[in-house]
Amino acid sequence: MVLFYCKHWTTENAFLTEEESHHCTRVLRKRVGDIVHCTDGKGTLIKGEITVLDKKELQLSIIQSEFEEITKHKLHLVTAPTKNISRMEWLVEKCTEIGIHEFSFVFTKNTERKKLRVDRLEKIAMSATKQSLRRYLPSIHLHATVPTFLSTLSGKEEKFICHFDPQNPDLVQQEWGSESLIFIGPEGDFTKEELTMCLDHGFKACNLSKKRLRTETAAIVATTIFNS
Amino acid sequence: MVLFYCKHWTTENAFLTEEESHHCTRVLRKRVGDIVHCTDGKGTLIKGEITVLDKKELQLSIIQSEFEEITKHKLHLVTAPTKNISRMEWLVEKCTEIGIHEFSFVFTKNTERKKLRVDRLEKIAMSATKQSLRRYLPSIHLHATVPTFLSTLSGKEEKFICHFDPQNPDLVQQEWGSESLIFIGPEGDFTKEELTMCLDHGFKACNLSKKRLRTETAAIVATTIFNS
Repeated sequence: MVLFYCKHWTTENAFLTEEESHHCTRVLRKRVGDIVHCTDGKGTLIKGEITVLDKKELQLSIIQSEFEEITKHKLHLVTAPTKNISRMEWLVEKCTEIGIHEFSFVFTKNTERKKLRVDRLEKIAMSATKQSLRRYLPSIHLHATVPTFLSTLSGKEEKFICHFDPQNPDLVQQEWGSESLIFIGPEGDFTKEELTMCLDHGFKACNLSKKRLRTETAAIVATTIFNS
Repeated sequence: MVLFYCKHWTTENAFLTEEESHHCTRVLRKRVGDIVHCTDGKGTLIKGEITVLDKKELQLSIIQSEFEEITKHKLHLVTAPTKNISRMEWLVEKCTEIGIHEFSFVFTKNTERKKLRVDRLEKIAMSATKQSLRRYLPSIHLHATVPTFLSTLSGKEEKFICHFDPQNPDLVQQEWGSESLIFIGPEGDFTKEELTMCLDHGFKACNLSKKRLRTETAAIVATTIFNS
């Protein structure tokens, strides 16, 4: 099954985005009368028949639409952007496939990268959402520093910070909340101040692995542990 | 800590490979008298002092050497090569970091790729072994068909085949043996004959996720589940 993304829909019709319309008509050569599936990335799966073939805005007549409540357990994965951008892109692709609700990228003191194109990461997340037949598109946020990131938290989340210390318990043994947040250390590690700040905000320090994992590997491992 | 790979060692000296010697002298600018760490990829960690600086074969005088028994639980991950080679390379890098004993790549009926350079994958596995400070280098094997692969099995392994079916139990609920093997379906899925052949050879069919995962994502998820 190929899943498309629709930007908006009414009770009768759904409308694919320009990029999706182009993919549907030019690459997959779909025609008026063909049946396709799409999601709004907010829980709705739509089965529809193509009625208007426009490479800028393809229109479907809805045959069936089905809403799925978001999973009870939501994961918010927080990390610092890595120097190598392709490692970030893989992180977003893989964690979206495995199952995630929200990404935050924080420019910590030791983060070498100074810019991150969220629009590019959003495209990758959308593609992975469709590929894995998911109905929820994760949101992606950027934060300039650890304090500004901490100021956005609601306080409802169960918060974990992965930072290796032989005294720390393993992440795999933790009890998850209905909303959980995992902060993965940056390539140059957290500064002492950043770590203290997070612990003061109620984060629990945990170990992810006895071995040294790259940032993106740690993120994928944490997301898998959460989902299984 | 930077970990190097040594091709052989005696009770007194260890010798880095040509590539590692070059990296040590030309990139990291190490000199005679400097202390470095290396592994033979078979469980031994060596701390040594550089005595002969040769970019073709750097020699260390061993100060300390320590052997670590291989972990009790060994994972053999089996998959078909993906069409996109970079996805295979990521699979090898990530699974090596997370923890694996052996990789096998099988050219199943639906595998589009016809060639795979094992030497290139071995380099990636070595780099990931060093990066994650592991002492065991996983081995990598190629098999031309499912039957030839099946003929190499010892019969001692606990064998799982990941193939989605609502009737199947989840992989996460399985009991692992001291040697476990997980076969991940290729991009075009197994043929009915291949699946039957594996089940006849004592494989247990399992589900990895309710969502559709790419081959390399499924491999990373399975390796994480095994290790945690």
